[in-house]
Amino acid sequence: MKKEVVAKVRVLYSDVDQMKWANHGAYHRWFEMGRAEYMRRNGFPYKKLEEMGYFMPVTELFCKFIKPIRYDDLLKIVAWPSNVKRASMKFEYEILNENDEIMAKGYTNHVCLSKDGKIVRFPEELKKILEV
Amino acid sequence: MKKEVVAKVRVLYSDVDQMKWANHGAYHRWFEMGRAEYMRRNGFPYKKLEEMGYFMPVTELFCKFIKPIRYDDLLKIVAWPSNVKRASMKFEYEILNENDEIMAKGYTNHVCLSKDGKIVRFPEELKKILEV
Amino acid sequence: MKKEVVAKVRVLYSDVDQMKWANHGAYHRWFEMGRAEYMRRNGFPYKKLEEMGYFMPVTELFCKFIKPIRYDDLLKIVAWPSNVKRASMKFEYEILNENDEIMAKGYTNHVCLSKDGKIVRFPEELKKILEV
Amino acid sequence: MKKEVVAKVRVLYSDVDQMKWANHGAYHRWFEMGRAEYMRRNGFPYKKLEEMGYFMPVTELFCKFIKPIRYDDLLKIVAWPSNVKRASMKFEYEILNENDEIMAKGYTNHVCLSKDGKIVRFPEELKKILEV
Repeated sequence: MKKEVVAKVRVLYSDVDQMKWANHGAYHRWFEMGRAEYMRRNGFPYKKLEEMGYFMPVTELFCKFIKPIRYDDLLKIVAWPSNVKRASMKFEYEILNENDEIMAKGYTNHVCLSKDGKIVRFPEELKKILEV
Repeated sequence: MKKEVVAKVRVLYSDVDQMKWANHGAYHRWFEMGRAEYMRRNGFPYKKLEEMGYFMPVTELFCKFIKPIRYDDLLKIVAWPSNVKRASMKFEYEILNENDEIMAKGYTNHVCLSKDGKIVRFPEELKKILEV
Repeated sequence: MKKEVVAKVRVLYSDVDQMKWANHGAYHRWFEMGRAEYMRRNGFPYKKLEEMGYFMPVTELFCKFIKPIRYDDLLKIVAWPSNVKRASMKFEYEILNENDEIMAKGYTNHVCLSKDGKIVRFPEELKKILEV
Repeated sequence: MKKEVVAKVRVLYSDVDQMKWANHGAYHRWFEMGRAEYMRRNGFPYKKLEEMGYFMPVTELFCKFIKPIRYDDLLKIVAWPSNVKRASMKFEYEILNENDEIMAKGYTNHVCLSKDGKIVRFPEELKKILEV
């Protein structure tokens, strides 16, 4: 699986708490940016999935906060799919600083749902880009 | 118009930024709590409005940040409707600390929409509680 | 370890995404409310810890999103400490709906830091309430 | 005053509520991105201001939500300073979509504070870039 930087983002003032660290509640946005940009790069933006009548909600989230992230840091987001099954998958993430130090890492698990909330197989077109 | 405390809320760590003040981005949640609890108290929770096929989106928001709000402060939220017209209205807010000092105040303007996004009159039942 | 409801919270409109589910990014706030209220109930609010010159940042977060949480749901937050060591600990959480169904569960890991960022032992007074 | 696009940002899933519109609580982040990038472009990132011992907190925020912003929209943020006085100023904002339609506009007022919380004059170096 190729692990590459798919997005960059500046830490906002409103992301940082009174420890002067990015609050742990800010990281889920960076993970979301990562998987959205991974999918867009590979020709299948998440928006398209919903337009086709599917959802891919987060069923689990894990994050390990390794080093303090500070206000105005420019972060690099690495995201890649893993453990792709018929109706579920994982996205993995690394958050790097400008010097490529790993500041945080984690994953989200997802399930594929139809519009009426039933677990269904991923559409083939999506599966192809996830299994690269 | 009766101005009364409709909700109380503790300031979270994730609400506070590195100035050790509640970040200005946190206040919209307290305003939302205020108007939601005003409506619930008066027998017409916002959820019911959507169930009836209406939306009441925010068209304008103003907030004046008067005194610094700190981590773990217990805030009192005062909210009341004003300027109620056929299809639009204002909610006004005051955020008080435990000693009833005004820490912030502001308003949100709202418009009444049908499910298909047209501006429509407020349902009578809602109008009644807004015009008290 | 006694597992009890330490806080209740209403789901806000701004917590919910276009799936009509509480967005996974909202849960960290409920976890924070849980551990804050656990500590307050046991006579040692987190604020006091910082006043004594310590921090207790989150080093890991895990959340399993079990059932969809909806707008305006009234949630019960259960939180309890576990795995308390000399300088690190875990808080565990369950998010229940009004019928006591488990909607989500998870944990946060924490480390005890001095003001200058060194890992130090928890103050005795805190350790006592965590080890109940 | 030159009004120019200083940043672009994708709307996240967690920014959007169950009306399928960006929640009004998301816009303050775009305003913050706008003023941060305005300052950085002009050679005076906000971070530097804090390093010099000043703060520039938000004293008022206004936003007019003109047209619905949707998930995954690519927004252009226009930000420019106005009404610059000795110790206070305004930033104005426009949020445009890809077709340069104005989706929202607003302002934030700011005051210049020293580290001990006193209102003080803006440092000359900052004033210069604000008064362009």
